[in-house]
Amino acid sequence: MFDPTAVAVVGASQTKGKVGYEAMVNAAEFDGPAYPVNPSGSGTMFGEPFVDSVADVDDAVDLALLCVPGPAVPDVLDECGAAGVGAAVVYASGFAEAGEDGERLQATVVERANEHGIALLGPNTSGFVVPESSLRCSFASGVDEIPTGNTAVVAQSGGVALVLAFQTRRQGRGVSATVGLGNRANVGFVEAIEYFDGHEGTDAIVLHVEGTDDGRALVETCRDVDTPVVAYKVGQSDVGEFAESHTGALTGDHALYEAGFAQYGVPTVDATDHLLDAAAALGDSPTPDGPNVGVVTAQAGPGIIITDRIQRAGGVLPELTAETRDRVGDILPGITYADNPVDTGRPMPAFGEIVTAVAEDDNVDVVLVYELFEQALGFPVEALDGLAERVDKPVLFATEGIEADLAEDRAALEAAGVPVFETPERAAEAAAVLARYARSHGEGVDAEVSADV
Amino acid sequence: MFDPTAVAVVGASQTKGKVGYEAMVNAAEFDGPAYPVNPSGSGTMFGEPFVDSVADVDDAVDLALLCVPGPAVPDVLDECGAAGVGAAVVYASGFAEAGEDGERLQATVVERANEHGIALLGPNTSGFVVPESSLRCSFASGVDEIPTGNTAVVAQSGGVALVLAFQTRRQGRGVSATVGLGNRANVGFVEAIEYFDGHEGTDAIVLHVEGTDDGRALVETCRDVDTPVVAYKVGQSDVGEFAESHTGALTGDHALYEAGFAQYGVPTVDATDHLLDAAAALGDSPTPDGPNVGVVTAQAGPGIIITDRIQRAGGVLPELTAETRDRVGDILPGITYADNPVDTGRPMPAFGEIVTAVAEDDNVDVVLVYELFEQALGFPVEALDGLAERVDKPVLFATEGIEADLAEDRAALEAAGVPVFETPERAAEAAAVLARYARSHGEGVDAEVSADV
Repeated sequence: MFDPTAVAVVGASQTKGKVGYEAMVNAAEFDGPAYPVNPSGSGTMFGEPFVDSVADVDDAVDLALLCVPGPAVPDVLDECGAAGVGAAVVYASGFAEAGEDGERLQATVVERANEHGIALLGPNTSGFVVPESSLRCSFASGVDEIPTGNTAVVAQSGGVALVLAFQTRRQGRGVSATVGLGNRANVGFVEAIEYFDGHEGTDAIVLHVEGTDDGRALVETCRDVDTPVVAYKVGQSDVGEFAESHTGALTGDHALYEAGFAQYGVPTVDATDHLLDAAAALGDSPTPDGPNVGVVTAQAGPGIIITDRIQRAGGVLPELTAETRDRVGDILPGITYADNPVDTGRPMPAFGEIVTAVAEDDNVDVVLVYELFEQALGFPVEALDGLAERVDKPVLFATEGIEADLAEDRAALEAAGVPVFETPERAAEAAAVLARYARSHGEGVDAEVSADV
Repeated sequence: MFDPTAVAVVGASQTKGKVGYEAMVNAAEFDGPAYPVNPSGSGTMFGEPFVDSVADVDDAVDLALLCVPGPAVPDVLDECGAAGVGAAVVYASGFAEAGEDGERLQATVVERANEHGIALLGPNTSGFVVPESSLRCSFASGVDEIPTGNTAVVAQSGGVALVLAFQTRRQGRGVSATVGLGNRANVGFVEAIEYFDGHEGTDAIVLHVEGTDDGRALVETCRDVDTPVVAYKVGQSDVGEFAESHTGALTGDHALYEAGFAQYGVPTVDATDHLLDAAAALGDSPTPDGPNVGVVTAQAGPGIIITDRIQRAGGVLPELTAETRDRVGDILPGITYADNPVDTGRPMPAFGEIVTAVAEDDNVDVVLVYELFEQALGFPVEALDGLAERVDKPVLFATEGIEADLAEDRAALEAAGVPVFETPERAAEAAAVLARYARSHGEGVDAEVSADV
């Protein structure tokens, strides 16, 4: 599915705006060949001639993108099976989300897919995108601009898969893949999570969950994989009927999901931006040993917001050791506030040294730095370069200012492996996710978690 | 203070990096004259010669920016008073936030200011910025890039005043002013809110509150002004000691503040981005009559997130009238979901007509539209242009996509007076603030609110 050598677009069309056209446009950019399949088609698309059936493609096709109406799907799957196609995406809706007839049709589709050993994504999805190989199995526009990153997005909704991918782009990040599961015919959360756990380019997995029939398998999978997983369960209030009409799933008991994720060591968040921030923090950082966050800020106001937010979200602001407090006092006599958070009052040349002192504090498991950009001083890039690796702790950075002014320094920080965040609250939420993750995955807690389960 | 004819920078300096230099650089861009004052200074700065004292400026100075150490402030205020200066900003720290000696110094400063009839912003602040008149009374870099908007930011922390102003820029908005109150010597929340209520360029006021001695006066002022006010109270968890070291104020009982704001009809939010989103929604929209939100979405997944979030944040998704449901069904036979939210399944040419139908529904007080950008279709700019005014209801829009692709359509929507938001959650929070605001400010509820009070 996610690493094919050749792709066929079944129902490819030369009519702009049609799913079969948009999907072909996106698929044509794939590093490998993309073949248009449509008995009504004539001529070529992107240099490849139309053929009547997947079976007529000379090449061995691994993945078929089905841009055909729902009722046509079972027959196309038979053709795919006969041609040895191992994976298919079904974009059409009108399946389990659309009442009894749709449910019957979906059952047929799943049966055929299983019979032929076809992994089937969807139906009722916008598909998926793997930017690194320019594999864009989606009919949405703009997916060619999604950059490569190290977060795999696994969303129940195809729309949300795109929302998240476009958001990572706005944050200057990207995705290793973004996948919309849709109705989860035979590729669901479990299959996707397991795949991306073994995927070289993926360092964190984020889940958008509306509801699933087998919550237990989901949380067990999250626990068993090595890659950090963060979940966003929607539907705390009653959105039942509308949600069911969407991907054919009930949103279920929200509290039960939250408790299940917590018990199995999966941090949860409550917004799309927080989800992606959490992935950046987890994917780009060493695993923290515990929930103790050391905060260094150049401005008190954002520092208070951060402190408040970390504490409310399950993190702890420990006292710094006497040694660190002395060290901070030596570096910056008359410092505004030398406990945790350390507040330097303004950005200053010694800022990097202060961050280093806090990062080296034995009481601190995670470091979060906040600094409004000041042109004359910039960010302490040199001090932060390699710091996380050396102290084996996550070091997060948050800032605000004029984008063009701070772009160079921000890029330098990110190149040095320091995740950068945009608002005090979002940075604090990311630090708190690290704190919560550490409670189940930090040094020496493995035994405890297993016992809980 | 906020509308001077001439400004003096006391303690102006030619040494880069010093507050007196940075403040002079920013002040020099003011539409009126900015005079450098420093007995140690020589030559000119930005064409104006140094003078020894405010009294030596030929022009009538209205506003003095005090870039001098704390202990020098009382004498400088005397000079200002003698010269007839009516307002001053004190940047220095070391006052009420810094223990007993500082408290005494602040008491002296307040006494002198009051004696001379000087409105004093600070001490311990980064100052303020009024972009429209290029009045940048701040030592921070980048403030010259803050665009003019219709939101007045009144922040207890000078740092947060900048955080918020820079954020509005990133959102393509701006501020009518951003003010950091600092220690609130004799210009506090009440004075600032009253001023901006009468300020022509201000359509919404946002507050960042850590704590204040007179919470009652604050909420009463919020109730009495005509301009919508939204508040962000920080310090739900225990940040007492650090907060006190910041602006000399205890964060106080968080729940009491929240209840007070609610009782006096001031919506509160829980993050800087939500605060600015709320201001955009309130400042750019007609006052809604009630809390009923009609949601139109082109993708179900974000629609579910939005529905869930609005309901949790105090909004209501009413049933649409039978007439509207019929109308929607006529426009789009076989629509994915025709209740509230209305889900069209994909962007489509009829999308604007659907939005119009929902906006005209008598059950709906606020309209929120979500649409992932699709290149071939764009946004329904024509249908939304003037719609809010015509139906006399707020119409909000949220989207996601490749910025460059959607920039033109987004700008067209904003030019048509439609506030645009970036994530489903942020759009929903903004709609919910409108809903909560309507509960106390909507048609016919005035009497009720007065009775409550």
